[in-house]
Amino acid sequence: MTGIKTTGEKKLMLFSGRAHPELAEEVAHQLGAQLVPTKAFDFANGEIYVRFEESARGSDAFVIQSHPAPINKWIMEQLIMIDALKRASAKRITVVVPFYGYARQDKKHRGREPISARLMADLMKTAGADRILTVDLHTDQIQGFFDGPVDHLFALPLLADYVGAKVDRSKLTVVSPDAGRVRVADRWCDRLGAPLAIVHKRRDPDVANQVTVHEVVGDVKGRICVLVDDMIDTGGTICAAADALFANGAEDVIVTATHGVLSGPAADRLKNSKVSEFVFTDTLPTPGELELDKITVLSIAPMIASAIREVFEDGSVTSLFNDAH
Amino acid sequence: MTGIKTTGEKKLMLFSGRAHPELAEEVAHQLGAQLVPTKAFDFANGEIYVRFEESARGSDAFVIQSHPAPINKWIMEQLIMIDALKRASAKRITVVVPFYGYARQDKKHRGREPISARLMADLMKTAGADRILTVDLHTDQIQGFFDGPVDHLFALPLLADYVGAKVDRSKLTVVSPDAGRVRVADRWCDRLGAPLAIVHKRRDPDVANQVTVHEVVGDVKGRICVLVDDMIDTGGTICAAADALFANGAEDVIVTATHGVLSGPAADRLKNSKVSEFVFTDTLPTPGELELDKITVLSIAPMIASAIREVFEDGSVTSLFNDAH
Amino acid sequence: MTGIKTTGEKKLMLFSGRAHPELAEEVAHQLGAQLVPTKAFDFANGEIYVRFEESARGSDAFVIQSHPAPINKWIMEQLIMIDALKRASAKRITVVVPFYGYARQDKKHRGREPISARLMADLMKTAGADRILTVDLHTDQIQGFFDGPVDHLFALPLLADYVGAKVDRSKLTVVSPDAGRVRVADRWCDRLGAPLAIVHKRRDPDVANQVTVHEVVGDVKGRICVLVDDMIDTGGTICAAADALFANGAEDVIVTATHGVLSGPAADRLKNSKVSEFVFTDTLPTPGELELDKITVLSIAPMIASAIREVFEDGSVTSLFNDAH
Amino acid sequence: MTGIKTTGEKKLMLFSGRAHPELAEEVAHQLGAQLVPTKAFDFANGEIYVRFEESARGSDAFVIQSHPAPINKWIMEQLIMIDALKRASAKRITVVVPFYGYARQDKKHRGREPISARLMADLMKTAGADRILTVDLHTDQIQGFFDGPVDHLFALPLLADYVGAKVDRSKLTVVSPDAGRVRVADRWCDRLGAPLAIVHKRRDPDVANQVTVHEVVGDVKGRICVLVDDMIDTGGTICAAADALFANGAEDVIVTATHGVLSGPAADRLKNSKVSEFVFTDTLPTPGELELDKITVLSIAPMIASAIREVFEDGSVTSLFNDAH
Amino acid sequence: MTGIKTTGEKKLMLFSGRAHPELAEEVAHQLGAQLVPTKAFDFANGEIYVRFEESARGSDAFVIQSHPAPINKWIMEQLIMIDALKRASAKRITVVVPFYGYARQDKKHRGREPISARLMADLMKTAGADRILTVDLHTDQIQGFFDGPVDHLFALPLLADYVGAKVDRSKLTVVSPDAGRVRVADRWCDRLGAPLAIVHKRRDPDVANQVTVHEVVGDVKGRICVLVDDMIDTGGTICAAADALFANGAEDVIVTATHGVLSGPAADRLKNSKVSEFVFTDTLPTPGELELDKITVLSIAPMIASAIREVFEDGSVTSLFNDAH
Amino acid sequence: MTGIKTTGEKKLMLFSGRAHPELAEEVAHQLGAQLVPTKAFDFANGEIYVRFEESARGSDAFVIQSHPAPINKWIMEQLIMIDALKRASAKRITVVVPFYGYARQDKKHRGREPISARLMADLMKTAGADRILTVDLHTDQIQGFFDGPVDHLFALPLLADYVGAKVDRSKLTVVSPDAGRVRVADRWCDRLGAPLAIVHKRRDPDVANQVTVHEVVGDVKGRICVLVDDMIDTGGTICAAADALFANGAEDVIVTATHGVLSGPAADRLKNSKVSEFVFTDTLPTPGELELDKITVLSIAPMIASAIREVFEDGSVTSLFNDAH
Repeated sequence: MTGIKTTGEKKLMLFSGRAHPELAEEVAHQLGAQLVPTKAFDFANGEIYVRFEESARGSDAFVIQSHPAPINKWIMEQLIMIDALKRASAKRITVVVPFYGYARQDKKHRGREPISARLMADLMKTAGADRILTVDLHTDQIQGFFDGPVDHLFALPLLADYVGAKVDRSKLTVVSPDAGRVRVADRWCDRLGAPLAIVHKRRDPDVANQVTVHEVVGDVKGRICVLVDDMIDTGGTICAAADALFANGAEDVIVTATHGVLSGPAADRLKNSKVSEFVFTDTLPTPGELELDKITVLSIAPMIASAIREVFEDGSVTSLFNDAH
Repeated sequence: MTGIKTTGEKKLMLFSGRAHPELAEEVAHQLGAQLVPTKAFDFANGEIYVRFEESARGSDAFVIQSHPAPINKWIMEQLIMIDALKRASAKRITVVVPFYGYARQDKKHRGREPISARLMADLMKTAGADRILTVDLHTDQIQGFFDGPVDHLFALPLLADYVGAKVDRSKLTVVSPDAGRVRVADRWCDRLGAPLAIVHKRRDPDVANQVTVHEVVGDVKGRICVLVDDMIDTGGTICAAADALFANGAEDVIVTATHGVLSGPAADRLKNSKVSEFVFTDTLPTPGELELDKITVLSIAPMIASAIREVFEDGSVTSLFNDAH
Repeated sequence: MTGIKTTGEKKLMLFSGRAHPELAEEVAHQLGAQLVPTKAFDFANGEIYVRFEESARGSDAFVIQSHPAPINKWIMEQLIMIDALKRASAKRITVVVPFYGYARQDKKHRGREPISARLMADLMKTAGADRILTVDLHTDQIQGFFDGPVDHLFALPLLADYVGAKVDRSKLTVVSPDAGRVRVADRWCDRLGAPLAIVHKRRDPDVANQVTVHEVVGDVKGRICVLVDDMIDTGGTICAAADALFANGAEDVIVTATHGVLSGPAADRLKNSKVSEFVFTDTLPTPGELELDKITVLSIAPMIASAIREVFEDGSVTSLFNDAH
Repeated sequence: MTGIKTTGEKKLMLFSGRAHPELAEEVAHQLGAQLVPTKAFDFANGEIYVRFEESARGSDAFVIQSHPAPINKWIMEQLIMIDALKRASAKRITVVVPFYGYARQDKKHRGREPISARLMADLMKTAGADRILTVDLHTDQIQGFFDGPVDHLFALPLLADYVGAKVDRSKLTVVSPDAGRVRVADRWCDRLGAPLAIVHKRRDPDVANQVTVHEVVGDVKGRICVLVDDMIDTGGTICAAADALFANGAEDVIVTATHGVLSGPAADRLKNSKVSEFVFTDTLPTPGELELDKITVLSIAPMIASAIREVFEDGSVTSLFNDAH
Repeated sequence: MTGIKTTGEKKLMLFSGRAHPELAEEVAHQLGAQLVPTKAFDFANGEIYVRFEESARGSDAFVIQSHPAPINKWIMEQLIMIDALKRASAKRITVVVPFYGYARQDKKHRGREPISARLMADLMKTAGADRILTVDLHTDQIQGFFDGPVDHLFALPLLADYVGAKVDRSKLTVVSPDAGRVRVADRWCDRLGAPLAIVHKRRDPDVANQVTVHEVVGDVKGRICVLVDDMIDTGGTICAAADALFANGAEDVIVTATHGVLSGPAADRLKNSKVSEFVFTDTLPTPGELELDKITVLSIAPMIASAIREVFEDGSVTSLFNDAH
Repeated sequence: MTGIKTTGEKKLMLFSGRAHPELAEEVAHQLGAQLVPTKAFDFANGEIYVRFEESARGSDAFVIQSHPAPINKWIMEQLIMIDALKRASAKRITVVVPFYGYARQDKKHRGREPISARLMADLMKTAGADRILTVDLHTDQIQGFFDGPVDHLFALPLLADYVGAKVDRSKLTVVSPDAGRVRVADRWCDRLGAPLAIVHKRRDPDVANQVTVHEVVGDVKGRICVLVDDMIDTGGTICAAADALFANGAEDVIVTATHGVLSGPAADRLKNSKVSEFVFTDTLPTPGELELDKITVLSIAPMIASAIREVFEDGSVTSLFNDAH
């Protein structure tokens, strides 16, 4: 015999960038594993340095990094980590992005715009990513931007079960904050058996500066409205939508979203809003000034950990959502 | 001097597959050009043979093929034409697909499904396509499936101006036939200054076999409803939506869609429907049995011809839609 | 220890398209496995939908699809299946194509033709194929069209042993039906120790419309002629060749080919021919009207099953043909 | 206006490696151009250095290199020249290979062999080649090994017209030296209106060491035989075939081939052969010891120059062969 | 005639990101052109939005962006601009990076590190860059990281001529600040005819914590030393080297570098140093607190503008440096 | 259950080209394995033929080939071996190149040069290489030329320990033979605790034909100088440097280099030099005429064997150099 034989072995290794270490730690904890010790820092001019302190050769590597602000820095750090793993002979590299940055730039609204969500998928691929694992993409089509497997997790069961358990379901109406989110609201209607309404931004074509009215389509009077979205960024749209619901007689308004981006004026808007409760997951770190009573954060870590386990053990991620999907 | 110099020249050449020759002819006519004579036939076992009867060397080639049934055949013919042009040294190959097949398979609804709309973009690229020119993709994100420029034309101005000129605008309500098309309806609202309504398919979570009710969200009583969609395939959804509108007191219902796919039971459904008029463009050939009085077909050829001219002359396709976008 | 380790495992899974399910079933049976339950149907406009009903994650997937008519549909179905498997995280995807469509378009005979056989290889690769397993390609060079391993099986032992056992070998002459198939006939000569003849289509350069005479090169008088080809499509060439042999005094003519494409006029031609026996394998389904006594179909399934087993177990496919090659 | 505009210009530039400078010079002469001055030498350890002494920026570059022995060196030199042109911003790079090395390794005859002809095409592509221009590939399928345009020239008109003008056509028989070259012989038959014969190597299956007999299939007695091949390498096959023809009563034998490789024992074999004339083109340099009276070399340079001109001017290469193909 | 012909035209367009607009403006000014009006801003969560306000179709686009801090943001902005240009049908995209970020991470010093300089080249390529134009890469090998043409400009003539004109050349010694920069110093020696010295960091292998001594190799006593480097980042190495020179009796020390990165403690270090003059180019913006008398900034814009003009007009960039290289 | 499961297995297989079989045999011996029997020869015209005589399916293949003269032949042989392994379904292909050819062409010194070291990396990748394992690249940046893992071994410990054990360390000075090798010399200084000197080629800018003086920078009088380089090719630079050291009073000079290329005039130069000992490793075969007493060759095989074992067993190659790096 001319060769040397041994039994094959698989080794799961978890790596985390510096964007949201609490979530990565919790995922590792749920898996009963530890994050690989990693040296990562910024040089004086902002260039990022990364080095793993254990051999990653032959590993089934999962690189966890969410994309909060400063978003370009954390994306670049993830790309650099992927490059280092590729060159360190990792066997397979799965990019875990709980919140996928630039997802809203998923099409050209007008000429000469980028499609940055596709660009991000291509950058990940180029750096060396074999697979992506992510949560509630802004649109499902972004799965198709990556040339390879995308495991797409849904926070809907987590969020909807929480809301469903708290309110009188017979009074519940699911509301989409604008025309673009009706499909998500529709899935909530199905799960909770509730009717649908929409807040529709109407432009007056006869007035020069495109004055917009928030028109409520559907019946919300006396109802408990759940405004559902995939992410809340500055909170402008969602708070205006909530105001429109109250103005149309809603009894109460709860807001839920998978991703609490909560940038810029969001803190003030949420504090000042009449909305009774905001429910997010922890795909992103919550800004300190938003640790308020009316903000509830549910952990996505168990779901990510389960998905990683299925991926590693060649099980089924689809089966995790069998009741919902 | 060691080399030989000449002035550069650009040569636009139009090629058409066999799927919808009337449209290709009309585009050529609008451009003041002729289609390149092409030999194309099927061998006995169904394999397609294509050969161009003029040199395509150095040309700026536009390959027009829409994707009606038998759809896989016509897609394959287009891929084969692209391959032949690539090997014949065309300088640049623009794929013109008035109706882009498999566009509805733009995401994984469930595990272990393909994303066929992305696959089609990749197949085009592999065959040798440099650019795509298409009309009203099922979702805008499909632009991002292609790794290169996509010129995306909108039939909205054509269809909306036709409808707007026919009816009493003050009585008009724009209606989305389901949750997934609200964004398109929203654009109609903007253009025509009309209110929005939605036909919402509601599932009863307490009944086993998911009975669906077509619930109308918004006010349609006494209104002239324009049901808008990107395509009408078997006509099931749209006719059920129209029925729901009439049942909720609509005075009249007009249906418009860019793409009249009109397969299977569509002919019967459209004939039997109470809808007063169906308005399509000719991105697809209209089946013979559907040449009915209540079906209006507007030609997309002038718009495609203008776009091709802009592309060839390095002008601006965006400028064609300046009022609408 | 920061990671999680387990022993590696390999899982063979067999998938079949709808083109030739009998062959796929037989291959599965020979392997002692079952085909993965798969949902596949056509939408009204002809778009194909495919979904696998078991997790394919981490599998060594074999996607069996032959390419009978309607050939473009079945090729597209295979591409879509490959895409679905790639996105479902199959570990390795082997495309099993017992009859490889478009193989005859393996070169440019004239300017501005496609090389469709190369295009098919590229489309498979783009969709996600890692390897191809196929039987008797029209020319061996097609192996080189695919950028990856191609396991190329030969039906020669199966067919030649069948013919060799039936006839008086001392009277046998192997005949190539035209100039392009002499190499295959040569291999038959080697295996059966028989002399060679060729039917040569001769064009008269002095007559305008290229009248062709079927000239027999070599001695066939009183001989039992085996006309060998890789495929019989419409049967025109082969039946004309057989007529020429009889006209030159052949005692009997047997026709063999790996692939019985048998399209269009083939049924009538075979029925009316003086050829005593036609011998094919079942790489393609036999049209119902051709279940005649003088047609013999030998099953290729055991050979494909053996090759799949060698591929899965990292054995040697070459060793399956050690006596022939 | 924000940009700067100028008229486009095209610039043909000819580059030659060191393998066969006479041919490159003659091609340049035919085009009325000069080869770009190029510095090329070997370092002491055999590494090749290349630098062009004029700017190649924006040029339509043609890199002429045939592949005589030492073949690996000249292929590598061509790859290095392509790399230098790519990095020097040539606009388009056409690789001109009058004799394409490794063409005979165009398939796997047995397991675990390379397909070197495909590998060469991929290496050219990787180095930066956009197009290939070549003469009489060993098999036409090699065109499909390159992912891009291949302009394939045929020496048949040149060679056949020479032979046709010299001999009494009514006595001419075209002979293929083995089973693999019958297709080429067939084309000669068509052009010269001559009958076909084949020299067939027959193996005796009952004798252990595969004794081979050269059997002549077809009638050659008293005929003037033209043995046609794409290349003559060591001359073994062709001289044995000629012997068999004489042994079967041929009056005379002429040998023609596009490529006179003529390695190793070729010189002796040709000198000692009873063949009356050997006719080659100059795709390869003729070894000095073979400048014999019975060897005729026709220049391929005018044909290559015409093809380069058509490619540069976006004309038609196909049209150069309209009478032959 | 079936096609439409026009004369080809070339259109240079200049685009600038927001990292260093002064330099881009100056390059445009030198070219007699204007920057294309561009809308670029950050969303609240840091995602970058870019849109060009003129059609870029068919243009020869140059995208100028240097990489100062926050470096990851500006690199990402450039990638997004490239993506937008690719999708807007620019004909050719040249990335102009006066200072190429991450250039120092051009190799793995230790296992499990990234090679970020290669990653940046790949990201540019993936986004759509056809070419790179840059100034004084940290190592020349980085040219080879990009798969395409790299025009590499040298500030040496600019800097050396400035220094050479100011000091008594007979007293000049060129000094490399460490072992890695000797090659650059060597080029200065050649240009100015001056002797070489090196500041060598010596580690004492017998002492645990690797105490380093700055040893001066070569003669600097009473000399005017020019310390040359490609970039000054925090200024630590260079100021320590200067101190060592003064300690060894240097009469004066001048520091020159192409890139004044000048991050973190650089401002203080430069202010407090005994070095008489620091000479940089403006490839990077100079921090406000460093507008000191002893800091001289020479403009690189004329050289970049000349190179862009040569690239656009298919001239020679090499010729710009004929005296130096 | 529809599939078939088995335990995974890994199989290391060693393949060697014909360039330096002694080294490959020794590596196999160190690993306790045997080289896979391989048929490799040259056809008469120089084309290389390779076939492996055992199945390589599923193997972890290591293809050992160093690049001595005739270098282009041995590089091509390695590419052909990789292609054959790819097509033979090897699972992973690691290219082992003890001496990496063309490494000195790692940048463009002037316009219109190739970057052949990058080209070689791309050719390897294209042929099918997944990884590279090599020794002392001419510059570390070449690691970044390959898009994948590069395991880079250092002969420094081997060479430095040998030299350190032979001489009086207190008299030792490490010398770089030119400005480009100072970084390597610097690593020797660190390991041996010795001072640094440089031989600097100085050009006189006032004399036309660039007369060069070998100037010694640093103190070498009475010292034992170790001249260190990565490779000795013709020996011109190194012998001239040694002469300069002796002329400046050096007591003795030892030369070490990883790669003894030793082409052309090297044999004479080494024999005639006053250098007391030349120390190389056996990454290249030593020419017979150089088996002199003053030439010492240390074997690199144990280090390569250890690295292959680490790669195969998913261990750490970095750990092999923990003391040095």
